[in-house]
This record gives sequence, C-alpha cells and structure tokens, in this order.
Amino acid sequence: MLPFATLLNIDKSLATPVFLQIANGLSDQIRRGVVSAGTQLPGTRVMSELLGVHRKTVVAAYDELLSQGWLEAKQSRGTFVSAKLPDIRPQSFRTVPAPNAPSQQPGYRFQANPLLSLPASKGSNALAFDDGFPDVRIAPWEALSRAYRTALRQGFRKNLLFYGETTGEPSLRTTLCDYLRDSRALPITVDNLLITRGTMMAIHLAVQCIVAPGEVVVVGEVSYASCNLIIRERGAQLLTVPVDEYGIDVEAIARLCEKQPVRMVYVTPHHQHPTTVIMPAERRVRLLQLAQQYGFCILEDDYDYDFHYDSSPILPLAAADPGRHVVYVGSLSKVFSPALRIGYVVAPAELINAMAHFRRIIDRQGDNLLEAAVATLFRDGDMQRHLRKAQKIYHGRRDLFCERLKTELGHWIEFSRPTGGLAVWARFDPVIPLAKLAQRCRERGLWLSDGTPYGIHLNATRLGFGSVNESEIAQGIDILKKAASE
Amino acid sequence: MLPFATLLNIDKSLATPVFLQIANGLSDQIRRGVVSAGTQLPGTRVMSELLGVHRKTVVAAYDELLSQGWLEAKQSRGTFVSAKLPDIRPQSFRTVPAPNAPSQQPGYRFQANPLLSLPASKGSNALAFDDGFPDVRIAPWEALSRAYRTALRQGFRKNLLFYGETTGEPSLRTTLCDYLRDSRALPITVDNLLITRGTMMAIHLAVQCIVAPGEVVVVGEVSYASCNLIIRERGAQLLTVPVDEYGIDVEAIARLCEKQPVRMVYVTPHHQHPTTVIMPAERRVRLLQLAQQYGFCILEDDYDYDFHYDSSPILPLAAADPGRHVVYVGSLSKVFSPALRIGYVVAPAELINAMAHFRRIIDRQGDNLLEAAVATLFRDGDMQRHLRKAQKIYHGRRDLFCERLKTELGHWIEFSRPTGGLAVWARFDPVIPLAKLAQRCRERGLWLSDGTPYGIHLNATRLGFGSVNESEIAQGIDILKKAASE
Repeated sequence: MLPFATLLNIDKSLATPVFLQIANGLSDQIRRGVVSAGTQLPGTRVMSELLGVHRKTVVAAYDELLSQGWLEAKQSRGTFVSAKLPDIRPQSFRTVPAPNAPSQQPGYRFQANPLLSLPASKGSNALAFDDGFPDVRIAPWEALSRAYRTALRQGFRKNLLFYGETTGEPSLRTTLCDYLRDSRALPITVDNLLITRGTMMAIHLAVQCIVAPGEVVVVGEVSYASCNLIIRERGAQLLTVPVDEYGIDVEAIARLCEKQPVRMVYVTPHHQHPTTVIMPAERRVRLLQLAQQYGFCILEDDYDYDFHYDSSPILPLAAADPGRHVVYVGSLSKVFSPALRIGYVVAPAELINAMAHFRRIIDRQGDNLLEAAVATLFRDGDMQRHLRKAQKIYHGRRDLFCERLKTELGHWIEFSRPTGGLAVWARFDPVIPLAKLAQRCRERGLWLSDGTPYGIHLNATRLGFGSVNESEIAQGIDILKKAASE
Repeated sequence: MLPFATLLNIDKSLATPVFLQIANGLSDQIRRGVVSAGTQLPGTRVMSELLGVHRKTVVAAYDELLSQGWLEAKQSRGTFVSAKLPDIRPQSFRTVPAPNAPSQQPGYRFQANPLLSLPASKGSNALAFDDGFPDVRIAPWEALSRAYRTALRQGFRKNLLFYGETTGEPSLRTTLCDYLRDSRALPITVDNLLITRGTMMAIHLAVQCIVAPGEVVVVGEVSYASCNLIIRERGAQLLTVPVDEYGIDVEAIARLCEKQPVRMVYVTPHHQHPTTVIMPAERRVRLLQLAQQYGFCILEDDYDYDFHYDSSPILPLAAADPGRHVVYVGSLSKVFSPALRIGYVVAPAELINAMAHFRRIIDRQGDNLLEAAVATLFRDGDMQRHLRKAQKIYHGRRDLFCERLKTELGHWIEFSRPTGGLAVWARFDPVIPLAKLAQRCRERGLWLSDGTPYGIHLNATRLGFGSVNESEIAQGIDILKKAASE
C-alpha cells in the first residue's frame, strides 16, 4: 500500500479543511502519476486510521473526488482511481519534457514596457515637495463619507448596486456637466462627457480612439511623461516641439504640419506641464486655427484649472472650439485627492460613444456608489466650498513658499512665481546636480523628485507647495538649503 | 462704437459671474474678428453704462482680459485689444474655410468597435431571469459601509488618501492572496496577484501582455462574448472549438495545435460559460499536458467559483499548474455585487509586473479606500459569512427554480440542473423563437436575454436564479409560461 500519510501530508493547523487537504492531495498524486489510474484505494476506515483523521472526513474527501471524476465507486468492490484518466507518467509535469515538445518555454511571454517604471513614491505622511499634489488633509472627507453612506443606503432604489452605465453614473454626469459649463464655459451637454477613473484613462481612451499606429502626435519637448508613454504604447510617432516662457511653440507645430500629416497635439495651456507657464491668447487662437486648417485633434489636459491666484483662470481651448477639434481631459486628483479615482473627458458625442465602447472592454464601468457620492458633494456645494477654501490656502502657501525659496535658495535656484497650480518649476544651478541633491534631501527626511522625468540635462524639477503647510514649508526649505550647501 | 450690449449678451440669471460673462464674451468676439486687434475699448464707466452693470464688474472683466493677454493697457490712453493677436477674419472659425485647408473633416476620427454594443440592461429592481448575477439585496452593505468609513478615518495614517500601488492596496492584496490559497489551493504569494477593477480588466491586461496581434487564441464555439471582443480588439486570430456536455473539446484543441502555433486558450472549466457544465478531471489533465507540450497559456476565468451545491468545488487548473501555464482571473461581481468593482488576476510574478506596468497607463491604480474596506470584510469574516449565507440561499433558489421550470415549462425547455453557479442554460423548443419570447416577457414585466450573445441559431439562453427570491421565481415562471403559451 502506498504511504498515504506521507504522500498526503495533512496539516490540521491550516485553514483549508482536512477533507479538502486529503482530496487535493490525492488528486495531486493522481495527476503526478504516483497513484495511477485504476488503482483501488483503501476503504474509508483503513484510510482514516492511516491518516489519523475521523472516518467521516475521509468519506467527505472520497465523495469530493467522486463528484470531480477522479475516483469511481464500483458496486460492492470499493473505490478506484478513474480508469478514464489519460496515462500519466510520474512527475511528467515537473521535470520530464514531453517527448515531442517544440518548446520548453514557460507558457507565456510578456511585453514589458521598458519606459514605464513606477516612480519612487512618497507616503502621504512623508514631508515632500512633490509634483504638485493637493493637501489631502484639507479635503472634505467627512462629507464624502456621509454621501457614500447615503449612496449605499439608497443604492438599491437608485439602481447603484448593479451594473451601470459605461459613460458614468447619471447623476454625476449631469452634475459635472453643469459644473464644467459654469466654471469653464464649456458649451456641452451630458452627451459630451464620459466619466473615467482619472486623467490617465481619459488620455488613454482618447489616444486609442483617435490615433492609429504610425500617426504623428506632437507634444512639448518637455511634457507629461505618462502621456508620452500612452502615445508610444499606441505605436504612434511622437514628435516634440520647443517649449518657451509662453508654453508650447505653436509656430513650430505649424512648420511640422507643413511637412507631414499631424493627427494630434497634446497641450497643457493653462499651466504648461512641467514649467507652469500660461499660454497667451495669441498662441491659443493660432493653435485653434492650425487645428482647423490641418484637421488635427488638440488634446487639452487641464490638470490644474481650479487653482489660480493672480487672476481668474483663462478659459480652456475647449470653450472656444467651434470646429470641435479639442478633446478636453481633467480629474479630481488635484482638486480633492489622488485617491479619489474620478476623471473625465469632454468631446463630441460620437467620439464619447467610441470611447465608451472601448472603455467597456478595459474597465466596463466606474464605481456607481462613489460617483453618486461625489455628485452629492457637488450638488450640496461641499465641493465648491472646498475649492474656495483650498484656493485661499494654496494662495498663501504659494506666496510663502516662493518668498522662502527666493530668500533662502535664490542664488541656487531660478524660478518664476507661478500664477496658478500647485508647484514651482525650479531650475537648479549646475553646481548642484539634482540627483545628488534629491538623495541628500531624502536622507534628511524631505522627498524631492530628482528631475529625471524631465530630462537630466535640465537639472530642473517641480517643487510642489500645495501639500505642505506653513511649518512644513519652513522645515522643508531648511532641509533643502542644508542639502544644497553641503 | 460696437453694439457691446448685443454682442456680449449678459444674462444675470446665469451661474457664471457677470464679469466672467463680459470677459468671455469679449474674448469670443475678438477671436471671431468682430472686435479686431488694436481696437480701443470704451472706458470702464462708459462700458458699465452700455451694459447696465456696475463699473467694478467691468474693471474686473478688463483685468481678467489684461492678465490673459487679450487686452493691453496703454499709459494714460486707455485699454486696447492686443495688437499681437494674429489677423483674424470675421467668423473664420465658424463657416469660412481656411484658404489652403487640406481637409474640412472634424479634427478627429474614431474607431468604433462595431462588435461592441451595450447589452439591453435591466434595472436592479426590475424582475429578471438575468445572466446569472447575484442578489445584491443580500450582500453585507452595512459592513462595507462601516469598513469604508473606517478606511476614510484611518486613511491619512494608513496612506490611503494618496497615490498608491498599481498592483493593489497592500492589505487587500495580502488578504485576498490568503483567501485564494485557502479556498482554491492556489500556490501563490502576493507577488502572483494583481487587483483589478473586475474580470474585464483582468482579461484585458492578460491578453495585452501575452498575445501579440495575429497570434491564435482558442475559445469555445460558445463562449464569453466580452472576452471575444477583447481578443478581437487585440488583433488576435480567434479560433473556436466545439463545446459539449463536458465543456470545451480538449482533443479539438490538440488537433489545432498540431496545425499551427496557439498562444492562448480561454476556458471556464468550473462552470462552462454559458452552458454551466463542469470540465471533468481527465480533460483538465489533458489540457494542462497540452499547454506544457505546445507552450500555450491557459486563461482560466473562474467567474463562478464560490457557488456550488452538490459537492465542493473542483479546484482550479491554476491549483495544479507546475509549468506556470495558467493565468487565473476572477472577481467579486458574482460574490457580492457587480457594483463592487474589484477583480483580480493570478499569474507568475514577472507577468504580474508586466501587467501592472500596462495597467498603469490605462488606469494607474485602483481605489485604495474601497480596497482597504473590502480587505476588512475578509479579515473580519463578513465576506466569508456572506458567502456561506449566499450559498445556502442560492442552493434553495436553484432547487425551486429548476423544479418550477421543469414542471411548468418542461415540454418547451431542455436544461440540466447546474451543480453550481447562478444560472440555468435553457434550450428552447424551436417553435418558440427566443427573440419573440423575450419581447413578450419584457412586455409583461420579466427581463430575459434574447440569447443573441450566444448565437440565434441555438435558441438558448441563460436564466439566472440567483437574484430572484421565492415569490419572484414564482412570478417570473408564471410570466414565462404565459408568454410561451401565447
């Protein structure tokens, strides 16, 4: 008789029930050929003694295997390993190559994206001058919690607990549409709006639906790195044009268009990413003219619209787009918290349909409950109150941050005070290589990007002031100064 | 002087502040060329009288446009439309084609997926024999609500309010890994697990990372329609093999492999979709052998693992996969609610990394707070208690549903009582065309699929019994019988 106690190796301390351990162990040994097809198994009483378990446990295990087809019960003769199993040689799965195997490779292969490495992350509670993220401590979480509870309570009645619309939970779609119309003068209806999980998904859908592999997409020579990845992953041809103190060089785009068809231009006109400058009116007009003339799509990423300190925000390109050339994306990541995974894309209705169909095969739909809760925040005014409060707080932080940066590090850093957004674009003196500086800062407890996403040659990075309060700004500037003077 | 009151068309009842209406209106008219570059504007006092608004409002509007670059203030001479704007002809954006425009197409084009139409949806509170969805009324929403509140409260400390891991919130990754090991004997660590938004995203990522355009993917000739869309969207070659009363025909796969390289085989061995049959042991062993021999990947979709009535569930192929050929996907949609957007994929660690990198450019990350809350449900045992409760309830509903279906409609419908899952595969007598029957049922208040996702020639569909209680089953069967006898 086979050494079943050894083969099956029961461990009563495991969470897996003992009968399942027996069943799994037996089927495993059958699969390996150790217990071969047609073998008669010991009766349940004998087996229970061999294994030191209750007989009922063995009965349950045998029943399990009978119903799975591994065992056969023969009338008044006992229990047998099924004779219908294919002839299996011992260990054939583990080590012995199949005789005519064309390949011993693992049964998969993957296309890792070498460009796509996860950035060094900072914890939300670490001190950091980050990429320009909001202070999650000031967001109206309590209101969100209440609204989520309400959404759950009303969920069945309001049809939130089931499959939903791929374009977004209807109440959020309506509320956000109103909000975008009021705050940005976008001439849209709900048919022009698709709720996504964030800006990444919005850009991904737009690029998938608009750009074919091989077509040209133009971005600034310094631009949003994640967007570049999406474009390259699509197999598009990524061309760059210079970025100056007025944003992306529109005349350079015109020259490109004369030479070849351009399918899409990605821009961040409100606060150029990463340099934070605002694109002036004449460039905006010219860009829209070019789009009309050459028939390309403008992908406008308005990641930072809501925070501006020296004037009202400039309206998006999408607000002045009679030719429907602009696809407009944004999210609540900067407004509320990066953890609130809600973004959106605004486009002509036919394009929204196309994107919804594509979204359906990557993510089916969003989170009905969360979307309904966020709609409530807009409807009750909590979101708007939060925006006003945050605007005031960030305004103060920008002033303090720029003042301290100028005073303490002015001879090492060149920067302009941004008129909006949550970060300063800081160009460091070449005598202070940013990689080393960031390393030294991190050792002293201040997280800082080393600027590699923007190209090492620039020796520049974004220093976010939004997520740090007054004492943290003082503390951080102090660390930065010490690290720079080392 | 231009008729500014007409041009600007102020409406004080709008939510947009009046000064912004003026600023937007003016920049709009400048853009159209109605107010041309270099024009002097009326002084603020005159303009305020023209428009019937307070002077301060006009000052704010002018300031806005000055900061945006539309206007210029000339020392002691007044306010002018910027001379730097390009020469714009009236209406050039709206109707007049640019002289050398190569194309008057809209600035986008899209690739709509003709295969992908949203299915006729039913409301969660409509009476339906659906595709096999759970009863969302019995899920532990109250526990989820509590856990979500806790996650929010502890969010800052636990680092849930910020950007997070693309592979999933760490506590859920750990908890789910333990759960899958215990319940399915998957030999995995957290490195083998990626949390997704659901099965669709899991399949999408697996197909993107494993299958190159043009490669062969094999599915059952009746299979999961959404998965077929993902495969076709990838540009892969979709081949089908027969499905019989033991599931997918594995010998047919062997014959395909002899003729050409096969990259992936998609299977639902636990409950074949849509026919609900269980793949027996000998086919499982053979399929794993073939994967080893020919080096293809088995994509195992275990959408229905948790509900089984006549025996314990058969362990997944992924539990017996020494060659690492199986990629295993599942979700909480059937366990809890389709609105709970959490799924997962289990695979070798290198493949998980590749999928995470790809996921990052379509969705960056999941919902930290929700994932932490769901981890709490597993850790506190709420999820397990719910599963035991649901198992009992669905067992009863299956028995009642099949009994009533047999008694009331047995001469019109052929079906086998499923040993698990939440639906019956019902083949209707050709004298009752399913499209008509579904239509009649819907008119009488019972939602029913018309079977088109499975091919009209089969005249068959899934009748879900999970989401209907005893009286709803009675009511639904009654409607179905009346509609069939019409």
